[in-house]
Amino acid sequence: MSDTQPTARRDGVGEVATRFVELFTADAPLRLDSGAILAPVTVAYETYGVLNEARNNAVLICHALSGDAHVAGVHAGKANRGWWDNFVGPGRPIDTERHFVVCSNVIGGCSGSTGPGSINPASGRAYGLDFPMVTTADMVRAQRALVDHLGIRRLASVIGGSVGGMQALQWTLDYPERVESAVIIAATTRLSAQNIAFNAVSRQAIMTDPDFHDGNYAAHGVAPHRGLAVARMMAHITYLSEEGLQDKFGRNLQDRERFSYGFDRDFAVESYLHYQGSKFVQRFDANAYLYLTKAMDYYDPFPDAATAARMLAPVESDYLVCSFSSDWRFHSSRSMELVEVLLRHHKHVTFQEFLSTHGHDSFLLDIPAYNATVKAFLDRRGGGP
Amino acid sequence: MSDTQPTARRDGVGEVATRFVELFTADAPLRLDSGAILAPVTVAYETYGVLNEARNNAVLICHALSGDAHVAGVHAGKANRGWWDNFVGPGRPIDTERHFVVCSNVIGGCSGSTGPGSINPASGRAYGLDFPMVTTADMVRAQRALVDHLGIRRLASVIGGSVGGMQALQWTLDYPERVESAVIIAATTRLSAQNIAFNAVSRQAIMTDPDFHDGNYAAHGVAPHRGLAVARMMAHITYLSEEGLQDKFGRNLQDRERFSYGFDRDFAVESYLHYQGSKFVQRFDANAYLYLTKAMDYYDPFPDAATAARMLAPVESDYLVCSFSSDWRFHSSRSMELVEVLLRHHKHVTFQEFLSTHGHDSFLLDIPAYNATVKAFLDRRGGGP
Repeated sequence: MSDTQPTARRDGVGEVATRFVELFTADAPLRLDSGAILAPVTVAYETYGVLNEARNNAVLICHALSGDAHVAGVHAGKANRGWWDNFVGPGRPIDTERHFVVCSNVIGGCSGSTGPGSINPASGRAYGLDFPMVTTADMVRAQRALVDHLGIRRLASVIGGSVGGMQALQWTLDYPERVESAVIIAATTRLSAQNIAFNAVSRQAIMTDPDFHDGNYAAHGVAPHRGLAVARMMAHITYLSEEGLQDKFGRNLQDRERFSYGFDRDFAVESYLHYQGSKFVQRFDANAYLYLTKAMDYYDPFPDAATAARMLAPVESDYLVCSFSSDWRFHSSRSMELVEVLLRHHKHVTFQEFLSTHGHDSFLLDIPAYNATVKAFLDRRGGGP
Repeated sequence: MSDTQPTARRDGVGEVATRFVELFTADAPLRLDSGAILAPVTVAYETYGVLNEARNNAVLICHALSGDAHVAGVHAGKANRGWWDNFVGPGRPIDTERHFVVCSNVIGGCSGSTGPGSINPASGRAYGLDFPMVTTADMVRAQRALVDHLGIRRLASVIGGSVGGMQALQWTLDYPERVESAVIIAATTRLSAQNIAFNAVSRQAIMTDPDFHDGNYAAHGVAPHRGLAVARMMAHITYLSEEGLQDKFGRNLQDRERFSYGFDRDFAVESYLHYQGSKFVQRFDANAYLYLTKAMDYYDPFPDAATAARMLAPVESDYLVCSFSSDWRFHSSRSMELVEVLLRHHKHVTFQEFLSTHGHDSFLLDIPAYNATVKAFLDRRGGGP
């Protein structure tokens, strides 16, 4: 923070820019869990705050399904604040005066890092469904290459909500010596049948959209926006609690006094969801949605007790596990399953369930006890700038 | 049951046929809540058992969203048993040796009664979205005309699960002197914002299918099967509990040992849902799905205390209200809200929540305590044949 940006301190980290780095090349490709190799691999990322001389104050943020590298601040000339700007900045729970904060877009996504919309060097056209499947561990491999690139040997913390929490967990398993602590929020070690079911319907909506063209829609100059909007609308319901939706919308009508007795959107909740769907398709790629939901389905680092024991034996990280009382996408009991396996293997774990009526999305909101808990946990890690 | 059908008694009501009756004509049309009129109106129905001389042993069953008049027995030459055959028959909870059982297809549906797929006399073609909106009360108006046609003055009971339960409730409000009792199962007096949201996404999936053609798909020789399948798959998730899905499918793979690392349906739950969706579109009409979900959204007989008091003042029926512990579509608390308003207005109400891991669909299953409770409640009503 310089003197020429006096408002940045009050308002957040101020203006930021997304940067891009090529981390894997044809000579040194990324080897994926599937056995496939991927190159080149570009990773989009942002950083906030200053890496200290000891290089021990770095915090890596892992974003959720529809997030990106732009976690805090604003982009030049644009009003769009980062998706977690309330949580990341000077004096905020992830304190950029204390920590050097890094966030990158996951590979397989669509916000700057290599994904199915990138050019396939083999064909000179967008990969589409020729993009190899990436897993959560693959995403973490790319993040580790970024951390190497930034000259960080050991992260003070890796933190993420929802599937970002899965990535944070995977960091501690795959690179135990490089992670001092992890904050795993509103996450789970494995999707339930219901979770998979919702993802499967999302993919079905996208893949049966006639504009999908087997994933080669770019070549046709179209995109499966109808299917993607339906997928997003449905998923959005699962991000909110029944109580939260009821409090916010109830049975309120939208801009009308009485029923249309037709197929207009009578209810406010309908208009809201429709808006969410139509907004989403402007910023998110349908193929990326397929890849990221599939990575989510596949995630299961502890399929059996022997694997859990083997994976957790070398782990050095401290854990903070957070859940929210009204989250039914990844219920608190799912967090407690993680806590149980960590404790069984003698890890240091703090667990807290926070009261909130806002469902899964609670992890993005300002909830004082939640903010204070994360802040206190992080303040103990990695010195200062 | 005659001696020539010895197996019918053991196996159920045996062979049955759906009948059709024209209940409203251009001269005497059905006046709908919307103000529109509808004629002609055909109602498809089945009956089981014998109406006694006192005509006081009739039980009307109201079906749920995707149900039809074929509630019990089998159709000639076909293996398809009625959707509640386990519950309706000799010695079963709705005992056809004791009661004369009637079930009709709702208007606005697609299984024999007049709906959006019927011929619009004004155009000579299928109504499509020119079909007038029908409400739950409108459906009950058509059912009352059928009951008149059958010469039944007073029903021993009206019984229904899910939206069928809403119809049963509406019967007691609109025709209080004609209903001795009502059994309202896994229902609610009003959809929550979340319920409406899921319905809205269903309709969005159907209406954005390019084969929808503003509801005139019949004229184009197509049908919005992709959208309807997505709608059904999503709805199906809400019919089952997370626990039930987990018990049944967990993270089991379908016909494979390891992940496809592609977009095949890896998990058994995906295959199951896909099967449910593809099966559904063969038997259900997309326009009917739109109309029936909208009727569901609109239902709200007690929007305020004054209306509840006015509606309930003349009510004579006894009520049995049933819910299921794992139903999250219409949670037990929604049944309890109904019980509370009924008790506040001095109605006779029995309420029971049954333990089940099968979610909303529990109402269709054999659950001994549930079966026994409904049977005991009905056995006290309407004499015998």
